[in-house]
Amino acid sequence: MDSARDGEVPLERDPAFLEPDAGIVFVGRLETPWMSRKTCPKNMREARERGLTARLLVKDMYRPALAGLETANYIIVLTWFDRTRRDLAVQNPAHASTPRGTFALRSPVRPNPIGLHAVRILSLDRENGVLELEAIDALDGTPVIDIKPYLPSVDRIEDAAMPRM
Amino acid sequence: MDSARDGEVPLERDPAFLEPDAGIVFVGRLETPWMSRKTCPKNMREARERGLTARLLVKDMYRPALAGLETANYIIVLTWFDRTRRDLAVQNPAHASTPRGTFALRSPVRPNPIGLHAVRILSLDRENGVLELEAIDALDGTPVIDIKPYLPSVDRIEDAAMPRM
Repeated sequence: MDSARDGEVPLERDPAFLEPDAGIVFVGRLETPWMSRKTCPKNMREARERGLTARLLVKDMYRPALAGLETANYIIVLTWFDRTRRDLAVQNPAHASTPRGTFALRSPVRPNPIGLHAVRILSLDRENGVLELEAIDALDGTPVIDIKPYLPSVDRIEDAAMPRM
Repeated sequence: MDSARDGEVPLERDPAFLEPDAGIVFVGRLETPWMSRKTCPKNMREARERGLTARLLVKDMYRPALAGLETANYIIVLTWFDRTRRDLAVQNPAHASTPRGTFALRSPVRPNPIGLHAVRILSLDRENGVLELEAIDALDGTPVIDIKPYLPSVDRIEDAAMPRM
């Protein structure tokens, strides 16, 4: 658990202890070079700059779902940040100029701690369920909950502005 | 439940009936013009072409988490497709040339039926928890599980190829 920082505002209730509205299953997990938050890159740009690859290991029963993914060069990996708190409405990250709402940040601390990572695939071994990734900004062992092809036609937004952070 | 199509392959077990690995909470829901699958746009490009807006309604307790989001012009909305099956490893969508693995498709049918939508915000009423969206490809009433700012620095991938579909 992080210690409180100036400007942080908790949610009224901690989503981790609310009755879930739906259940998710882990379809795989990441093997990454990042063993602690201190060393873990804070975003995908930083992860790429470190120049270290990672692997996405898909559970046996989900491997047939990889068929056809070899024609994509980038995928979107959705992860479940299993070692993070879920109870902050407003956060004060080190990089931010002022405290900001959780939905205005990409922090892993969120009501549903889902990470979104657009990553390049270096290789795909469908039979063994192993995807080699150029880089990723997540701790070793982080569960994976979805894999989607990155589609430039809908995911590459030309007129998106960089929000103030 | 859809009827089976040629080439479909089920998962060994239906994730909807497995013991969940984690629980998610719904943080809001969508109000959209799309009341049935027949009329619902199949992707964000189609949704934009229809020229009809939608609204994202954020639950009371999560509204403080919207602070600061007004500086983003695009957001990523993660939804929970609550009216879809979860048990297909290989699918044969109408638009696809051949059957393809679920992880190579953006179909709502997935082990965790999470939708990813990069959408333009037209207006943001933080107090009432209402975001007006340019367009979205999801049925009316679809639960929302996360809102993230779209960050061109990590989400706009210049060298992503369009995978074969």
